[in-house]
This record gives sequence, C-alpha cells and structure tokens, in this order.
Amino acid sequence: MKPQALVFDAYGTLFDVHSVARRCDALWPGRGMALSQLWRTKQLEYSWLRSLMRRYAPFSQVTREALVYACEALGLPLDRGAEDALMAEYLRLSPYGDVAQALQRLAGIPHAILTNGSPDMIEPLVRASGLRFDAVLSVDEVKVYKPAAQVYQLAVDRLGVPKEAIGFVSSNGWDALGARSFGFRVYWINRLKAPLDRLGFQPEAVLDSLGGLPEVLL
Amino acid sequence: MKPQALVFDAYGTLFDVHSVARRCDALWPGRGMALSQLWRTKQLEYSWLRSLMRRYAPFSQVTREALVYACEALGLPLDRGAEDALMAEYLRLSPYGDVAQALQRLAGIPHAILTNGSPDMIEPLVRASGLRFDAVLSVDEVKVYKPAAQVYQLAVDRLGVPKEAIGFVSSNGWDALGARSFGFRVYWINRLKAPLDRLGFQPEAVLDSLGGLPEVLL
Repeated sequence: MKPQALVFDAYGTLFDVHSVARRCDALWPGRGMALSQLWRTKQLEYSWLRSLMRRYAPFSQVTREALVYACEALGLPLDRGAEDALMAEYLRLSPYGDVAQALQRLAGIPHAILTNGSPDMIEPLVRASGLRFDAVLSVDEVKVYKPAAQVYQLAVDRLGVPKEAIGFVSSNGWDALGARSFGFRVYWINRLKAPLDRLGFQPEAVLDSLGGLPEVLL
Repeated sequence: MKPQALVFDAYGTLFDVHSVARRCDALWPGRGMALSQLWRTKQLEYSWLRSLMRRYAPFSQVTREALVYACEALGLPLDRGAEDALMAEYLRLSPYGDVAQALQRLAGIPHAILTNGSPDMIEPLVRASGLRFDAVLSVDEVKVYKPAAQVYQLAVDRLGVPKEAIGFVSSNGWDALGARSFGFRVYWINRLKAPLDRLGFQPEAVLDSLGGLPEVLL
C-alpha cells in the first residue's frame, strides 16, 4: 500500500554532508576527508549527548562546536575566518545526484523533510537546492534530537497522517531504525553499504540509492 | 573542600576496555586495535541511541550487538565461539596501573562505582579485580544510559550524599561533562590527552592519570 506521505531525512539522505570536504581540503591539503568525517561523527555524538543531558542547543551551534573539537583533535589550526567559511558550506551542501529525479517521480505523494537542522541551517539549504517540499520540519520545534520519539511524532502531528501511513526515508541507519521503532514504514537508503545497526529493528526495505524508491513505492 | 563521597566510572576509567585488543588480535592478527576501537565506539553509540529511543537493553546485550556490527563492518568472520570468547574478556578487563594505589590513598572517603555495565558484567569484573568499593551502582536500575540525569541521580539517592558533595571521576569526557551538567564536582582523568568535548561544561580539574587525584582531593 502506497504511503499517504513521505518524510525524508536531510543530511546524508538528500544532501551530501561530505561535500564540505573539498573546502576542508583547500584549507588543509590532504586532511579534508578526515576532518569532514570526524566533524560529522562529533556532530551526531553531540546531538545525542545533549539530548540525553537535556541541554538542547540548535544544530547550527552543535555543528560549530563539533567543528572546533574535530580541528583540535586533528591538530588543524582553526581561526574564526576558516570556522565561518566551513560553517557557510553547510548552507550549500550538494544534493545527491539521485534526488531531483526521485522526487519528481514521487510527486504524487506529499513529501516533507524532517531534520535535525535548525531553521537557520535548513531553510537556506533547501532554498539554494531548488528542491520543493510540502513541509520542512525541524527538531528545533521539540528541542530534542533524533532518534527521540518526539521528533518523529512531530511529523505525524504536522502532516496529519497516522504513523503507519508515513513512509520515512533516511540514509542514516540509526535514524531509519529510530523511525521504525517509532512506527513509521522505513526505507533505508544505504548509500555507504554499511552493515545494519544492531538496535533490535529492521527497515521495510534497503535500497542502494534514492533511484530505486519510486519502484518500491508506486 | 573534600567531597563526602567519590563516584567512579568503570569502563575506561578504572578498567581498560582496550585490554580486549590482545584477544582480538589473536583471532585476527593485525586487526585487534581497529576492532577494539570500533567495538567501543559502537557500544557507546548504541547505549545513547537506545536511551533516546527508550529501548533500553542491558549493557551485556548492547556490547554483544556492537561486537557483531564491528566485525561485520571490518569484514572479520565472527562465529559464536569467538563472540563468546570476546564477550568473556569483558569480565576480566585489566584495571589501569594507577588504580589500586589511588584507591588506597583515598580510602578515607567512601567510594562507589557508577557504571553503564549491567550486573552480569560489572559484578564479575569487580570481583576478579580484587578492588573494594562501598557500592557498585548500575544504570540497569534506571533503564537508561549515561549521560541521562537519572543515572547520576541514582548515586545521590543510593549514597545519601547531596550532589554538590559528590566527587565524580571519569576518563570519558562526555561522561565527565554529563555529570557536571547534573551538578557533581567532576575530575576528568584525560588518559588519552583528548580535546575537551564542546558540550557547554567544564570539569573542576583535568588530570593525566588517577595518580594525581589524592593530591587534588586531600
């Protein structure tokens, strides 16, 4: 049965967070990918830790703090100019090559973004991408990060669609399983061919790219 | 002012989680440290994710699931015998070399363990170590992992000491800052000379090893 609404994760699913690596590499030749990876790792870690500590801060702040940590850990000197330049990259991440066509083919089903990104990050990013969504929902409304159930509930409340009828699409395995634990129908876009995280749940389908999604859903 | 009680983290602070690396290396020569590190990373990640998903499972299960993931990610074939052998290593992790003497010098202050470890993991480990504690407290009582405030509150409740009078000792930076956020006096034993995590808090003191703790406290 076709879902009544599709909800997409943004970072890593629609937008390539490692498109910052090029800019990192221009600043510190040969270190771009290492920085980009540690930056992303700490960004997620801080989002989980702050949620458990009940010390929510917007994703723009968490992302900046993760960058500062990652540069210190890798011994890369970061001045305010470089920090601002790298943060600005997050406002123009590249959409993956399979996104535009998949969204076009799925245009018959209402589709939304549900993201960790705070409005100051996600709104300019979506605008710059030229992609169209029926809603862009941020965890900032509930002040806790994925995979807390309150985040997924936000989509139910705002879209007015029961959770069993929502198809949730994420490339982040832990996000996919968090959404499954909540009760969405989940499509894991396993871009990195990662093993399935062992968290007691399974996605409804595992796909290599967004390109296969219309076939599965329609 | 001297704390009225000392509360120690176990894994990484008193006991070296990477002492499993030797056994890993015997099974897969040259891959021991890589496996040990990814295993630990996923173990913590799963503890945070399950807490946010409200899908608590005991640390013994989380640790086993992290091992299965880590071996798959690294392409290391894991049969049930190897899995059980590696899990058994967690019951006899080596205490760090600075632990016994520091505890002896601090014997005048009541001291407890507050750990993610479930009783089936932590009790045999403490017994095997020969170390003595006034209490061994596990998150298993509250069914959520560090750095949730409920975990640190458990120590207050069980020790009957106000949080401002508890000295909390951890080598895990995020645990130290979670405890600080809760309101403990915090001593971060920065064994790995890691950068300070950017979570909006600072420990009361940062030490290279447990050896310096008696001097700071007494």
